Amino acid sequence: MAPAGGPGAKKGILERLKNGEVVVGDGSFLLTLEKRGYVKAGLWTPEAVVEYPNAVRQLHMEFLRAGSNVMQTFTFSASEDNMESKWEDVNAAACDLAREVAGKGDALVAGGICQTSAYTHHKDEARVKQLFQRQLDVFARKNVDFLIAEYFEHAEEAMWAVEVLKALGGKPVAATMCIGPDGDMHGVSPGECAVKLVKAGAAIVGVNCRFGPSTSLKTMKLMKAGLQAAGSKAHLMVQSLGFHTPDCGKGGFVDLPEYPFGLEPRAATRWDIQKYAREAYKLGVRYIGGCCGFEPYHIRAIAEELAPERGFWPPASDKHGSWGSSLNMHTKPWIRASARREYWENLLPASGRPFCPSLSQPDV
Amino acid sequence: MAPAGGPGAKKGILERLKNGEVVVGDGSFLLTLEKRGYVKAGLWTPEAVVEYPNAVRQLHMEFLRAGSNVMQTFTFSASEDNMESKWEDVNAAACDLAREVAGKGDALVAGGICQTSAYTHHKDEARVKQLFQRQLDVFARKNVDFLIAEYFEHAEEAMWAVEVLKALGGKPVAATMCIGPDGDMHGVSPGECAVKLVKAGAAIVGVNCRFGPSTSLKTMKLMKAGLQAAGSKAHLMVQSLGFHTPDCGKGGFVDLPEYPFGLEPRAATRWDIQKYAREAYKLGVRYIGGCCGFEPYHIRAIAEELAPERGFWPPASDKHGSWGSSLNMHTKPWIRASARREYWENLLPASGRPFCPSLSQPDV
Amino acid sequence: MAPAGGPGAKKGILERLKNGEVVVGDGSFLLTLEKRGYVKAGLWTPEAVVEYPNAVRQLHMEFLRAGSNVMQTFTFSASEDNMESKWEDVNAAACDLAREVAGKGDALVAGGICQTSAYTHHKDEARVKQLFQRQLDVFARKNVDFLIAEYFEHAEEAMWAVEVLKALGGKPVAATMCIGPDGDMHGVSPGECAVKLVKAGAAIVGVNCRFGPSTSLKTMKLMKAGLQAAGSKAHLMVQSLGFHTPDCGKGGFVDLPEYPFGLEPRAATRWDIQKYAREAYKLGVRYIGGCCGFEPYHIRAIAEELAPERGFWPPASDKHGSWGSSLNMHTKPWIRASARREYWENLLPASGRPFCPSLSQPDV
Amino acid sequence: MAPAGGPGAKKGILERLKNGEVVVGDGSFLLTLEKRGYVKAGLWTPEAVVEYPNAVRQLHMEFLRAGSNVMQTFTFSASEDNMESKWEDVNAAACDLAREVAGKGDALVAGGICQTSAYTHHKDEARVKQLFQRQLDVFARKNVDFLIAEYFEHAEEAMWAVEVLKALGGKPVAATMCIGPDGDMHGVSPGECAVKLVKAGAAIVGVNCRFGPSTSLKTMKLMKAGLQAAGSKAHLMVQSLGFHTPDCGKGGFVDLPEYPFGLEPRAATRWDIQKYAREAYKLGVRYIGGCCGFEPYHIRAIAEELAPERGFWPPASDKHGSWGSSLNMHTKPWIRASARREYWENLLPASGRPFCPSLSQPDV
Repeated sequence: MAPAGGPGAKKGILERLKNGEVVVGDGSFLLTLEKRGYVKAGLWTPEAVVEYPNAVRQLHMEFLRAGSNVMQTFTFSASEDNMESKWEDVNAAACDLAREVAGKGDALVAGGICQTSAYTHHKDEARVKQLFQRQLDVFARKNVDFLIAEYFEHAEEAMWAVEVLKALGGKPVAATMCIGPDGDMHGVSPGECAVKLVKAGAAIVGVNCRFGPSTSLKTMKLMKAGLQAAGSKAHLMVQSLGFHTPDCGKGGFVDLPEYPFGLEPRAATRWDIQKYAREAYKLGVRYIGGCCGFEPYHIRAIAEELAPERGFWPPASDKHGSWGSSLNMHTKPWIRASARREYWENLLPASGRPFCPSLSQPDV
Repeated sequence: MAPAGGPGAKKGILERLKNGEVVVGDGSFLLTLEKRGYVKAGLWTPEAVVEYPNAVRQLHMEFLRAGSNVMQTFTFSASEDNMESKWEDVNAAACDLAREVAGKGDALVAGGICQTSAYTHHKDEARVKQLFQRQLDVFARKNVDFLIAEYFEHAEEAMWAVEVLKALGGKPVAATMCIGPDGDMHGVSPGECAVKLVKAGAAIVGVNCRFGPSTSLKTMKLMKAGLQAAGSKAHLMVQSLGFHTPDCGKGGFVDLPEYPFGLEPRAATRWDIQKYAREAYKLGVRYIGGCCGFEPYHIRAIAEELAPERGFWPPASDKHGSWGSSLNMHTKPWIRASARREYWENLLPASGRPFCPSLSQPDV
Repeated sequence: MAPAGGPGAKKGILERLKNGEVVVGDGSFLLTLEKRGYVKAGLWTPEAVVEYPNAVRQLHMEFLRAGSNVMQTFTFSASEDNMESKWEDVNAAACDLAREVAGKGDALVAGGICQTSAYTHHKDEARVKQLFQRQLDVFARKNVDFLIAEYFEHAEEAMWAVEVLKALGGKPVAATMCIGPDGDMHGVSPGECAVKLVKAGAAIVGVNCRFGPSTSLKTMKLMKAGLQAAGSKAHLMVQSLGFHTPDCGKGGFVDLPEYPFGLEPRAATRWDIQKYAREAYKLGVRYIGGCCGFEPYHIRAIAEELAPERGFWPPASDKHGSWGSSLNMHTKPWIRASARREYWENLLPASGRPFCPSLSQPDV
Repeated sequence: MAPAGGPGAKKGILERLKNGEVVVGDGSFLLTLEKRGYVKAGLWTPEAVVEYPNAVRQLHMEFLRAGSNVMQTFTFSASEDNMESKWEDVNAAACDLAREVAGKGDALVAGGICQTSAYTHHKDEARVKQLFQRQLDVFARKNVDFLIAEYFEHAEEAMWAVEVLKALGGKPVAATMCIGPDGDMHGVSPGECAVKLVKAGAAIVGVNCRFGPSTSLKTMKLMKAGLQAAGSKAHLMVQSLGFHTPDCGKGGFVDLPEYPFGLEPRAATRWDIQKYAREAYKLGVRYIGGCCGFEPYHIRAIAEELAPERGFWPPASDKHGSWGSSLNMHTKPWIRASARREYWENLLPASGRPFCPSLSQPDV
């Protein structure tokens, strides 16, 4: 695989977005690998990249097949303050795995950093930036294609992250916060957050995690409006949960009583995600992916929904009939009868849980 | 890996069951690999074993790590009438993959056959038995450890299958039907079905697929009662869906409006499955696994629930704190507060879908 | 008003039922008058007949207008052991009110008795029968048209009641138990209960209260089958709750967590009751009414559903358009669009309560 | 009964509100009398005051017993354009009935007018005002204690109504709109509406009907804020639906698919209304009542919740134990166990309808 920018290289992330292309992100690593047996809930760290590389590689492959154009390094919470001495090997191995799989298709490698425990504990800017810098040093050495600062609750820490990443030069920086329509934990509105991130140097801004598809798009509307009002420009990016969370409070799904071991009934269908992809596209978002709970088939749903605009289908559509069309091969006539778009678009799926409510009261 | 029965061999399936040991089955292949991008819904055939062996191997590995003692060959619907010329390679490759992974732990290989389209179309006993015989020839050649005839709607066809498998000699035969408490498609009750399967030669009988955990256990109660009433003896086996289906009609989940692309809100939590494992155990069932929708973490939940009886934990419990105990490392106090059994046992998880009902009206 | 049986008298209850006519019962007194401010929950006694006769008269009038053919005396729990010295005045006043209103339409007066606290406490047959006899003496003096022994949890006490009522002679006796498909509190099945009641002398048997429309009809099916099996004959009668209770245990709605002050979301619509009336009719039940929660408009729904069979409409239909037809006068077009049977028959009404489940776990 | 303002007269509405007293309004007439058989849905006119005065009188009595301080004349939609020649008799009879019952307790008579069909059709100010004036002439002749202009979708028509009523002189005018947080049908916000009504001459302003308890209080918060921002002063009044409608659009419950014949599962419990009364009180609202679906026991719940502040209980509390205390007389121990505030405050009542969702999609 040629280094990004070299001869025969793939188009860079900004080149794609400036062309108006849709960039399909990837999906859930932590929660998905927890269910597969390779990540420990609560801890939520990615040592699997060194312990069980086959499992991580396989998940990257599934996202690639599903249509992802970005292989994000599985480096969530992999800063020194969370992983101690293991951190450096983890970051390096994560880059290698992402690059290996990216090389098998039209995907870029994005080095990812996220908020730190250090910020929460003491807000020491120098220390926090140093943590980011160390991860960045690995990303630089491994020559990732671009950088993502994601999952920030505080605009201030997100800005620090962008400033560090930006300083590398040459690599575009995307920044997403894990906030909802009510804004960050200090009361900074989504619109203000977006403007701050752009000022700090992000070329792509948006949200990831913590909130479900429709809530995340509400936040994106506010970010877009804030940028417009400020005359600020950036590409828009959304990577929502694969769970429905209309009942979330400000902190998002981590405050729901079901987090993290009872979220199953909230899981989005592929049809929910097609709707999300379409609405994100209409809103002008062009980098569309997912976060926790976003399984490979959800990514495929994005790629299929936007196939008409993009002009091609993802590889994994060789195992999927659009809008359920493969069901027309079924032996049961009532199943064949559902092999059509109207059926699945209008389905209101039952939970099979008559003793459970629709919504929860968040813990805080 | 020594061949089954050879020196240093693992204990056989019947040896385990006669000892009163719990045998943990494996889980979902078709639906899970559909979501990962390797199986086509509607068709539901396992050509992935030759097309994408890494993906299939990885899933076997996940079940092994989760505690499965059985690697079932991924040969569902892989008879000649469904797969044409590919059928033989698929059966052979599936055996090799199952054996390879089984060799990495304490698991046996089970060759699996299921109901045929041929039976539905013409009920020609010779033709149907020939289809079974051909798959069996591959299993014999590959020296699987035992045989499973599964997913039969009709007791008659299940008996034919058992008769064919039994004729091989030397390999124990398990047989499970995909029926609910109302019995098979010709009105044969669960108790009668169980008796018939034993008469045909099955040493292990039970149900798999089509119905959720609690419904499957209702059927098992009826099977057990039927066997007792007839003075018939067999080991009991249950491999339920990973979905809640209290609203199913006689045909099970394939008749629900949500089948197969809107089942998400019905997915069982790990706690639901611990309850299922406990109740199955109390009922005297000792071969406990899952079918469609049963993810690796569900299998882990069986192994963890019955760890006290078995005296050991599954490998994947290195990435799981029993009853959510790993959450006591979380930074948020209200999440730490949920790190206990009472919390998760009593949780009634919300669907996040206020416009959706709890139950569906089956299509038939 | 001429005394029943005198010249110009109305047709008696048995005459109507023998003719195959539908007899429409009345509905809820205790729960309805509790909401109107005249009955105390927990106590559930009918002193309102002497304290607030206008309120009771008005409710009788509403049922008469709705189509009731029976004015049941409001004497529930009005035996001496519940009401002490007031009991006699209450029974007498209740008869007068029922007779007064019955005289304004085609309705009969039924003197009603129900199970006693005495039975629960000591099962002294002589004492219990004496309590019934005292109420019966008042009914005899007031010349009610027939007698109803209702709301019995135990077949034994119900038989005692029927034996007492039967002894009067000349007045037909109806008997209904407050049981579900699981039978009475001593495990006597619905079929056996029905047979016992007929043997004791009841000409009309069935169920009232404790269970919702569909559950009550399940019990009626079992009663009917039991009578047929025993070669026993009786007219069938059903007076279900006006609440949906698919989640009730053996004790019925009194064991639900919502009893009695949170039952609102379970209230039946008029369309639910039309369905109930139709199904009761199809089952061969000809005395069809309601119990707790059965409001006047629910009774009207019975009378309207069976108007084609009966050949006439109830008086209150001057204020009701069949199947919502009056909505075609509404100014809003989407409301006019609902003025048709298909709309209301297929409506699945939302609860407006996203934090509440569909079903409850009964307390016992 | 002495005329209002005469010797020995009751305190007037403004005198009460200025003293900081809570004024308990009355509740539902149209929907409640529809269920009792005296009002026709769709038409929604009050000819029952002449046709069935006993039924109307009884309902007034129930509200009085429940604690209402206001007997509103049952003159909804009783203007000439809706009722033709009957209109004058209806208005007069309604006044007499309200006065008769008000005389039996501490209640005032309020003459009520509402929006006209005429406004919708042609917006002819002179014609619309003439319709109001004619009703007002009757109210003046009957010497009602104060006037209420209620159920206005448009601030403009509400202002016209207030201007007409105000012109009488000597009688205080209250004005409530049937709007939600999104404001009136022309986009006038709740705050602006309130200011306009005060400018037109209303001494009491607020909302009635169309929206459930919690939504109505949201609108009241906006009205209060609007008045404060404008330096405008008025007493606040709320008369919400007795139904939960979190899923309403701008038009309120008339646009829900369940309107008007499938609203049952949305009916508020008495505990829901106690919460509503408490929150209204905290917000500074002192005239607290109800509208459609608000049954007598709901009014009693307001009077009971605010009994500590008011220093007395409503008459109907002789038939109600506060917070379910009367259940401690019940024979079943688990029912006695619910005779406490915590139980009922925390109950999440089930709908008994597993095939129905929690929320609806409004028709518009």
